[in-house]
Amino acid sequence: MGRDIYIALLHHPVLDKDGKVITTAVTNMDLHDLGRLARTYDVRACYVVQPLALQGRLVEKLVSYWRTGRGAEYNPTRKEAFELMRLTPDLAGAIEEIESETGSRPRVVGTTARDRPAALDYARAREELCKGGSWLIVFGTGWGIDPGFLESCTDLVLKPIPGLSGYNHLSVRTAAAVILDRLLGKEQYNA
Amino acid sequence: MGRDIYIALLHHPVLDKDGKVITTAVTNMDLHDLGRLARTYDVRACYVVQPLALQGRLVEKLVSYWRTGRGAEYNPTRKEAFELMRLTPDLAGAIEEIESETGSRPRVVGTTARDRPAALDYARAREELCKGGSWLIVFGTGWGIDPGFLESCTDLVLKPIPGLSGYNHLSVRTAAAVILDRLLGKEQYNA
Repeated sequence: MGRDIYIALLHHPVLDKDGKVITTAVTNMDLHDLGRLARTYDVRACYVVQPLALQGRLVEKLVSYWRTGRGAEYNPTRKEAFELMRLTPDLAGAIEEIESETGSRPRVVGTTARDRPAALDYARAREELCKGGSWLIVFGTGWGIDPGFLESCTDLVLKPIPGLSGYNHLSVRTAAAVILDRLLGKEQYNA
Repeated sequence: MGRDIYIALLHHPVLDKDGKVITTAVTNMDLHDLGRLARTYDVRACYVVQPLALQGRLVEKLVSYWRTGRGAEYNPTRKEAFELMRLTPDLAGAIEEIESETGSRPRVVGTTARDRPAALDYARAREELCKGGSWLIVFGTGWGIDPGFLESCTDLVLKPIPGLSGYNHLSVRTAAAVILDRLLGKEQYNA
């Protein structure tokens, strides 16, 4: 298909419960779940965007445990997932690295649980992705990506996942799963 | 649509890494993610199938913290998710309760990461669910539901989630997200 898909798990800038912009702490299970999703859907890499140095060291420790430490022996499929994890202090670092790796500046896809007038539905987003090139799909931790940042750094923003109930409070792990399956999964209905 | 969907998170009988039948320990985050998924996709309840008494007490403690304890005040949307969680020592208990609640014995849908000749694709499974009645979709922890149990207690088994890479090691949280979205999500491609 001639396309390179990357994903990012954003710890800053995201909102807290009260709408304030914060940096969230790393959740171990997010790294496992996002790495395994990346591996499943043939994503090139998963960036963990974390500006705090101490938190970054924690990410490196977790990643190296599963990539080269005892975890790699204990569970080789987890090693494959962690081989896709990369740490960056900010999203700009990921964008630059992808550009130098693929030769094209990635188009950045934002995700949010809040509906926006210009948000793209999944059919149209799939069509966009099919045009090829490099792409970076960004998932926010906490109470979601800072709307100002979403506005400024993304080329397109996806519609929220329409549940059946109006409830839109999925975890970043499960929301990322649904979104990647919708965008990248084989034709779901008869697969 | 006249249907009642239930889900279950099975801790026994499931396989361990070496294919032995075991009972797994409860993972806090599984309860959060499955409860939030259940609430999103308008599922009637999520059964936590856990035969060990001490583990069951842990489930009750977690559930009551979010349902009536300090968690309920701190995060009311999480309270809504935990209101759907129910504890049962075995799947038969869930089946009986659903039957007495809905008036019809649920058809049991198994999930697995291993492909089986008779497994149902998602298009056909959606059609089945559209016929109405009550349904119980079962997700296994550990290395998946014991194949003997899968054989004996299910009315139909879903195909594994086809990734793009042949890698089939998603977490139960993210696999459940993809499966519920495929089976119950609004028409994904243009939603």
